[in-house]
Amino acid sequence: MHKSPGLHRFLTFVDAIIAIAITLLVLPLVEMTSELTEETSLEELWSPETIGKYGSFVLSFAVIFRLWQVHHKLMEPIESYDRVVGVVTAAWALTIVFMPFPTALIGIYGNEEVPVIALYLLTLFVSSALLTALALYLARRTELHEADVESSKRMAVPSVVTTILTGLAAVIGILVPRVNYGALLLLLLTGVLTVLVNRRLRLPQEEA
Amino acid sequence: MHKSPGLHRFLTFVDAIIAIAITLLVLPLVEMTSELTEETSLEELWSPETIGKYGSFVLSFAVIFRLWQVHHKLMEPIESYDRVVGVVTAAWALTIVFMPFPTALIGIYGNEEVPVIALYLLTLFVSSALLTALALYLARRTELHEADVESSKRMAVPSVVTTILTGLAAVIGILVPRVNYGALLLLLLTGVLTVLVNRRLRLPQEEA
Amino acid sequence: MHKSPGLHRFLTFVDAIIAIAITLLVLPLVEMTSELTEETSLEELWSPETIGKYGSFVLSFAVIFRLWQVHHKLMEPIESYDRVVGVVTAAWALTIVFMPFPTALIGIYGNEEVPVIALYLLTLFVSSALLTALALYLARRTELHEADVESSKRMAVPSVVTTILTGLAAVIGILVPRVNYGALLLLLLTGVLTVLVNRRLRLPQEEA
Amino acid sequence: MHKSPGLHRFLTFVDAIIAIAITLLVLPLVEMTSELTEETSLEELWSPETIGKYGSFVLSFAVIFRLWQVHHKLMEPIESYDRVVGVVTAAWALTIVFMPFPTALIGIYGNEEVPVIALYLLTLFVSSALLTALALYLARRTELHEADVESSKRMAVPSVVTTILTGLAAVIGILVPRVNYGALLLLLLTGVLTVLVNRRLRLPQEEA
Repeated sequence: MHKSPGLHRFLTFVDAIIAIAITLLVLPLVEMTSELTEETSLEELWSPETIGKYGSFVLSFAVIFRLWQVHHKLMEPIESYDRVVGVVTAAWALTIVFMPFPTALIGIYGNEEVPVIALYLLTLFVSSALLTALALYLARRTELHEADVESSKRMAVPSVVTTILTGLAAVIGILVPRVNYGALLLLLLTGVLTVLVNRRLRLPQEEA
Repeated sequence: MHKSPGLHRFLTFVDAIIAIAITLLVLPLVEMTSELTEETSLEELWSPETIGKYGSFVLSFAVIFRLWQVHHKLMEPIESYDRVVGVVTAAWALTIVFMPFPTALIGIYGNEEVPVIALYLLTLFVSSALLTALALYLARRTELHEADVESSKRMAVPSVVTTILTGLAAVIGILVPRVNYGALLLLLLTGVLTVLVNRRLRLPQEEA
Repeated sequence: MHKSPGLHRFLTFVDAIIAIAITLLVLPLVEMTSELTEETSLEELWSPETIGKYGSFVLSFAVIFRLWQVHHKLMEPIESYDRVVGVVTAAWALTIVFMPFPTALIGIYGNEEVPVIALYLLTLFVSSALLTALALYLARRTELHEADVESSKRMAVPSVVTTILTGLAAVIGILVPRVNYGALLLLLLTGVLTVLVNRRLRLPQEEA
Repeated sequence: MHKSPGLHRFLTFVDAIIAIAITLLVLPLVEMTSELTEETSLEELWSPETIGKYGSFVLSFAVIFRLWQVHHKLMEPIESYDRVVGVVTAAWALTIVFMPFPTALIGIYGNEEVPVIALYLLTLFVSSALLTALALYLARRTELHEADVESSKRMAVPSVVTTILTGLAAVIGILVPRVNYGALLLLLLTGVLTVLVNRRLRLPQEEA
């Protein structure tokens, strides 16, 4: 299965955008150092506030990497693309490029402020929902890939599962302030649930 | 139609530049957070000024993505390149790399200041005009691609249409302060006008 | 030996992440200029503090480039990948994306503060150890590449050697403050030691 | 002439680094906006100081793009690489990644300070000299490419010419403060001189 050169260039472009967004996550940490001088106590580096910045950095890195992998998996069998795929993918990339902003906010407000938690979790939810929209569209447009009907359905399962879990995490994280970002641990269930759904729908399991 | 390895590497390089420029658009948002402390009221995040920053971020993301797509489409049938293509593409990339600056200015001055509106819209116009210059040049240099005469003409239509609409948007946006960036909504007409022009010139429609 | 398209896209994505992280190393230098005005004495540019920033920039550039090369070498014969390779590579990329932060800290505290030295050297050690974990895993998973048993073993040698030297450098650099980052000069021995280990294990030498 | 997969990945990695460095040139402009508020007079944007920043941005963009093109041209016929090529290319990439720093300094000090002019021009000279070292090395290592003896020699001509002109520009720019960066206009002679040298050495002209 070969991609059209146009799709190849499009995906490389989008991947570069995501790669940059994931790397910009370190900026609030680097930025923080511009306020330090040689005389600043190093305890600053282990203060709760700073540890919050480390945490939001690692969390967002993991989440963006995960979303990229869902997109990657989704596009693997696709051979060409149309206007809808282009627009939805661009909108998805926009949500990822936006991520360093709510990440930086978490680094400042920690888990104290519900609006900040909500902005972060809802950005993730919209990002994941756009991937699901893309998956469902691709599953129907069989002329864009070589996958048979069963594989087409299976393609959409991981992103549907991820979106439902992200939505659930958003609801729990916003309503139960004590849980907040911890609700994203629900995403660890993606693998198991994908297997279960595939089994339920009698779809073949993916190998990797 | 295969690209020469040299052209392939050139396009990948240019794409990476555009991808980075589009991602740097988030910096004014991240930068803004460096002034916040845990005690800052969150209302700051929904103040008119901040909403202006969100708006300029989304607008510029959409506009750069669109310009990239025009370039992408334009280069699709091209198989090798010469010095003129190299220089014009580099100049075009310069306009895109510059974009985060007028975008950041919009984030500060909103739609209050005509010079800022003018800088933004004229940068877009120059960027689009360079793409058109490239398209017209490529349409004549048939030895750089395999397209026949009709396809060559058709190649240039979307960027000519985009450039005329951007120029019109610049004139309206600068002369009618109440419209300002809203004039860019004219770009939504690109698709329809391209079809109309192709029909008028009796050129075959593109499929995608 | 051809890589699966999925692996190709994955590696390009990871490479882009590393390329950005290595380029962000210049930010503390650029950042520093934002405090300068036309009236600032230029002696600032050659002050010991600034020279520390130049040093940490060059050191981190060399170290990240070296780690990337180990990864590059390691993946060269690999043809496809599984979940473990994906997760370990993502974790490795995380350590590299983090690097601009300890680099910026060195630029401020120089070699005066043991915790800063420790953070820097331990980040490098973890990064290198993840590459070794990847190498050892790949050496056993012969279905992911076409290398024979001897080549598989040889693949792991450079990263094992690098990790041991980085670990040693971390111990020395932390315990002997006068040596600090100088301990990384141990890494210059990687080439020689790799040859020696290969000879000892009677493995064929690599050509390049 | 096909590149080895290892060389392909190496070049893509280096290209990404250069692409990011060229894009970071806009940061001093974006940074400048973070000091503006809605009340700042817009005249700031056309002050001599700001115009200096625009100038240094465009100058460095053009110079880096040019150096990248020399590298691009140089590597076009190369099919595999060795340790020397790897190390020299990495050192060259380091000079490019460093460029945003002297560029930012120019943005502040303009053409008033000889040390700043010297730092900028010497960085360019070192960068260009490393490309020439690479070219001369590659011309001798015929096993790394398929070019015949004459083409090998011709490969080195553009970078030798560029390096001599950059060195001359550095000497003039440092010694004659009134000329300063204007000395780089000498680089416009690269094309003509390359043709002349090729003719003198009775080497065939390149087509593009």
